[in-house]
Amino acid sequence: MNPKQPYLVGISGGRDSVVLLDLLLSAGFQKLTLCHLNHQLRGRTSDRDADFVRKLAASHQLPFLSARANVKTFARENQISIETAARELRYAFFAECAKRTRCPRLVLAHHADDQTETVLFNFLRGSGAAGLAGMKPCTVRGQLQILRPLLSVSAEALRAYAAEAGIKWREDASNQSLEFTRNRLRHQILPLLDTALGRNYRPALCRAAEIFSAEEDWMSSLVPLPEKNLTCAQVRAFPLALRRRFIRRWLQLHQISDPGFEEVERVLSLLGIPLGPAKINLPGNRHARRRAGILFIE
Amino acid sequence: MNPKQPYLVGISGGRDSVVLLDLLLSAGFQKLTLCHLNHQLRGRTSDRDADFVRKLAASHQLPFLSARANVKTFARENQISIETAARELRYAFFAECAKRTRCPRLVLAHHADDQTETVLFNFLRGSGAAGLAGMKPCTVRGQLQILRPLLSVSAEALRAYAAEAGIKWREDASNQSLEFTRNRLRHQILPLLDTALGRNYRPALCRAAEIFSAEEDWMSSLVPLPEKNLTCAQVRAFPLALRRRFIRRWLQLHQISDPGFEEVERVLSLLGIPLGPAKINLPGNRHARRRAGILFIE
Repeated sequence: MNPKQPYLVGISGGRDSVVLLDLLLSAGFQKLTLCHLNHQLRGRTSDRDADFVRKLAASHQLPFLSARANVKTFARENQISIETAARELRYAFFAECAKRTRCPRLVLAHHADDQTETVLFNFLRGSGAAGLAGMKPCTVRGQLQILRPLLSVSAEALRAYAAEAGIKWREDASNQSLEFTRNRLRHQILPLLDTALGRNYRPALCRAAEIFSAEEDWMSSLVPLPEKNLTCAQVRAFPLALRRRFIRRWLQLHQISDPGFEEVERVLSLLGIPLGPAKINLPGNRHARRRAGILFIE
Repeated sequence: MNPKQPYLVGISGGRDSVVLLDLLLSAGFQKLTLCHLNHQLRGRTSDRDADFVRKLAASHQLPFLSARANVKTFARENQISIETAARELRYAFFAECAKRTRCPRLVLAHHADDQTETVLFNFLRGSGAAGLAGMKPCTVRGQLQILRPLLSVSAEALRAYAAEAGIKWREDASNQSLEFTRNRLRHQILPLLDTALGRNYRPALCRAAEIFSAEEDWMSSLVPLPEKNLTCAQVRAFPLALRRRFIRRWLQLHQISDPGFEEVERVLSLLGIPLGPAKINLPGNRHARRRAGILFIE
């Protein structure tokens, strides 16, 4: 990151994002635009969060971009969780900010304990290496470059910094913990793990995330681009892990969105030796078939 | 598994292993030798467990092998945890049984909930793919082939089977949960996760373990065997994940036992461009050095 360049800063008004802003200003960053999405999930309180950020921007004479989102409606209409809806709308808002300001770089305040939580959450959902890689310090989403400079800093350290520097923030302004399961994870399970294991397990998870991140990149890079139809012999020649990733990519190529373990295993059953099924079902009333040693989707 | 072949059965006297024996007998296995190690960790209760298994073997007219281990002393002398000591002594005992009976096949009663626990435990220790692969249904340890036919069966299903079949067992005869941390995991954290997430997350973890197991095998197979000394250029040409695994193998080749993330990253810092350290410390008062583009260990 370069203090002379312009950056968007995603800011909820909570401690983490206000500390991030303070750290950036202290480091000499000047061309910052504060971006705040009002998720309207907590009524008047959400409005006061937005006011707080507006004033914060004014006090530093920084541009302020804000919008209101109707998260609940969006979640209902798209049959997704509140958390997923909030995240999608937030990133759509950030993309809009990037377009308006012609600044493609966004800084977010995710820290090491957010990372622990994300990685544990994904682990408990049965994620593979991609999920256990957690968030990345630098990543690209559409036109947007997302930077997370605090990703290896603990919440504890941010708390201490906020207290030391006398920083004011809005309690509970965080928009990151809206989902029921994730809330239980944060408020019940993580504290219990802290007691049972000592807080030392948290850095171990972040370290493991780093390893998984690199291994996911490596393994992805080794998966060939599938043809439209596959020959069974080609797929059988791969080691099992590559076979799974290759079939997953093949299904995606055929617009089977987000194919899971079950779908992939079903397709692999078409390779069964000597005899297996010759046709299996896929989501959206589609099918994969084997005929004369060729796999295809119809 | 083939009912006509001989097998050793590891049996603590607890529900899981007694059900395993019952299932094997029902499936027509006859050449079974029951192997019981008395860990002597629970005084008289441990002796009664051993008696129970002896009588169980007699009632089925099966050979019975047993020994007493001094787990606490072994743990203290080797500065390892009680759980690690118990496991090492148990496998040494099984190896001895295999030698005595000339039967290299051992059947163990680990089930799906043991797998969940192992995988979660390893995850919280920061393990990579190898740890998250959990236990394997069929694996080799020294001369011993270890089989875990119940690995995808839930504890719930075993409980139901035991009740249905009127099977008797020794309460708490399990020798698998001796460690403090692991006990808290089993008795506090897993039940809480069950409440928070519903028990459905357990199969998801076992499925993820299957994926990690195949990916670990795949990645391991891709790591070249290192020479005694390495050229920096060769290592730099690898993707990060492969670099880490290659250096880890290189350190093992030089008898640096169980090198961790920190040691590997320190060695990688020797590749720093343009300038990094030319010498780093390794455990056991050893060092890795870079000289004229060559890495070596002294």
